[in-house]
Amino acid sequence: MAIITLTSDMGTKDHYVAAVKGAIITQYPEARIVDISHSISPFSNGQAAFVLRNAYPEFPKGTVHIIGVNPETDGQTPHMVVRHNGHYFVGADNGIFSLLFDGQPHEAFELTMKLDDDFATFPTKSVFVKAACHIARGGTPEVIGRKVTHVREQIGFRPAVDAQSIRGKVMYVDSYGNLMTNIPEGLFKEVGRGRPFRITFGRTDDDITRISKGYADVPPGDPVAFFNANRLLEVAINKGATGAGGGAAQLFGLREEDPVRIDFAPRDQA
Amino acid sequence: MAIITLTSDMGTKDHYVAAVKGAIITQYPEARIVDISHSISPFSNGQAAFVLRNAYPEFPKGTVHIIGVNPETDGQTPHMVVRHNGHYFVGADNGIFSLLFDGQPHEAFELTMKLDDDFATFPTKSVFVKAACHIARGGTPEVIGRKVTHVREQIGFRPAVDAQSIRGKVMYVDSYGNLMTNIPEGLFKEVGRGRPFRITFGRTDDDITRISKGYADVPPGDPVAFFNANRLLEVAINKGATGAGGGAAQLFGLREEDPVRIDFAPRDQA
Amino acid sequence: MAIITLTSDMGTKDHYVAAVKGAIITQYPEARIVDISHSISPFSNGQAAFVLRNAYPEFPKGTVHIIGVNPETDGQTPHMVVRHNGHYFVGADNGIFSLLFDGQPHEAFELTMKLDDDFATFPTKSVFVKAACHIARGGTPEVIGRKVTHVREQIGFRPAVDAQSIRGKVMYVDSYGNLMTNIPEGLFKEVGRGRPFRITFGRTDDDITRISKGYADVPPGDPVAFFNANRLLEVAINKGATGAGGGAAQLFGLREEDPVRIDFAPRDQA
Repeated sequence: MAIITLTSDMGTKDHYVAAVKGAIITQYPEARIVDISHSISPFSNGQAAFVLRNAYPEFPKGTVHIIGVNPETDGQTPHMVVRHNGHYFVGADNGIFSLLFDGQPHEAFELTMKLDDDFATFPTKSVFVKAACHIARGGTPEVIGRKVTHVREQIGFRPAVDAQSIRGKVMYVDSYGNLMTNIPEGLFKEVGRGRPFRITFGRTDDDITRISKGYADVPPGDPVAFFNANRLLEVAINKGATGAGGGAAQLFGLREEDPVRIDFAPRDQA
Repeated sequence: MAIITLTSDMGTKDHYVAAVKGAIITQYPEARIVDISHSISPFSNGQAAFVLRNAYPEFPKGTVHIIGVNPETDGQTPHMVVRHNGHYFVGADNGIFSLLFDGQPHEAFELTMKLDDDFATFPTKSVFVKAACHIARGGTPEVIGRKVTHVREQIGFRPAVDAQSIRGKVMYVDSYGNLMTNIPEGLFKEVGRGRPFRITFGRTDDDITRISKGYADVPPGDPVAFFNANRLLEVAINKGATGAGGGAAQLFGLREEDPVRIDFAPRDQA
Repeated sequence: MAIITLTSDMGTKDHYVAAVKGAIITQYPEARIVDISHSISPFSNGQAAFVLRNAYPEFPKGTVHIIGVNPETDGQTPHMVVRHNGHYFVGADNGIFSLLFDGQPHEAFELTMKLDDDFATFPTKSVFVKAACHIARGGTPEVIGRKVTHVREQIGFRPAVDAQSIRGKVMYVDSYGNLMTNIPEGLFKEVGRGRPFRITFGRTDDDITRISKGYADVPPGDPVAFFNANRLLEVAINKGATGAGGGAAQLFGLREEDPVRIDFAPRDQA
């Protein structure tokens, strides 16, 4: 049974998500539909990419992921099926694919299917569902699209790096108020090589100089930094959450896009 | 595999929706359960009808739709199974069926099943699930109810019309802040017959005199009017949303039930 | 097809819930996944236990319930599989099991499985999913854990009682603002034995002296007390909800943990 996941900024109050699900079930009754998120901030490619890139690898290879964020109907943004790591992604070539994969996907196809009438106002339902069901049924992308060599690039998630520092940012604030940065564990090890360091993200008082294993390495209410399940640096408050003692975003006054940097001790001190 | 959908104002925090799903799975394990929405404003027949009427046609014929809004336990409001366009609807005869179908449904049955003890406080679970599973299993409405000729009428969605104008209203504000009116494309064409027109919904400055194909026909941040995937007049801001640049509802200061009118040029000018 | 339910405080915006679902589908594709709630207030064992105890009995015996609230990674809180009333529960021994069952469960097993690397930051995905899929597949708890005789006790839901009164509390405020107390119908009957009574929960003016059958026993806008589908005393406003006329919590100024008491007439008056 093929799996189709849904990521969107459509919310769950309106009829949109249900209409998409109904259309999938009508076109391909065997599909197993799984919601990734429908609470992406409106029009945020960055949030959609962050959430989906941290969820999709848990699904079996062959899963088809519909991305209903900025589906674009301006006539200049192709709709695409993209294959990467054995997964399929259906969405508009609005820059999101480059955020999802840190660069170009393994294969990309511009959709050339005939479009339904209501294409212009609800392409997630009228275009993406059709393409996703085709792939989920075992169809090949070549039948519904033509291969292209590049997807549109959007300024990505990679931090700036030099010998003494990594300058990243808050990429995502989760619903507890935990701060997800764009600093991967591998980069931290490669640049730091075991040297002492200082993580700076707000007032000097809040600096962190230790990497923990997880939330519970510090007492409840204390700040903690660790590489999370997705191997990205996360700054959090143990047992803190917005509305329950205060999460990290609230206590440190940080938002998405705010800078987070790591300074390493000079080599001669290491 | 029969499909049962759920539309309610119960929210997704509490145990109510899960209890309904557990009851369905216990009574009819083969049912495929799909959420339409559980975020209908409390007790709003209008919102529930709007959301469901725009979602249900996407589902296959034979789908059973449970409506858990104003399920009523006053002893004077019958519980019903209604058949319309090949779909089944289970709910209370509180007026919602007339909103769903713009008039009387094809067939309506007042439920006469024996009721469980907790009928009085949670009929969506104790009554509607039982009826929906009966229908989903292939049972006939006649076995659990007696046919009636009318459902209760509630003041509906139809706009007022004369030779020069259509006087409608905002029927629903979606989560982006887009304004869904009760003015269908067919009526606009029938009354307008190609004449110039002016859509008025707030300050004169905001009047719109053009029907577009969709959001992207205007630059981001500009107002746009078009007939949407449900063939209803929608007024929106391209790439605008509540909290992200401002959606139409916010920028125009409009709410559900506020008037929207279209005035056509006099015939001698046409 | 085995059922796995999910109860958590993870919300539905982030990638967490989707990652858990992907992990389940990868490990046990036949699992039927049902959300109980992901909107539990952060770290609230009390809310999680209340919601799950009112939902789980609707599911078929053999269902596996994952509890992703306070999954704990402090090294001192065992992860458990618990069997009770023919259902299985997977979570951390943080006190929640005693709240779920009013005492000790029928059987409890401390998990002894080998742990994945990301154990420390996301045990709901890395530990609970593995255990839940093992049970859902028909595996026995003995294979993945060792039997223990007690789970941790947390101060529970039971009200204080004497011959003339029941002193309970608001255990949960639902999304309509209805007040769910910890006073069961059985206890009310046992202590009251038909005597007149007075339910006190705020200002004296708001006292209620009658038990109704349900919301609709009083006119819209009036307060009402009844034993709900879960046989617990509920205080509500008929057709009242937060944001729609005002729910009981709003109108009476009550929150979770606030006292609710019932005083019965002295025996010689009965």
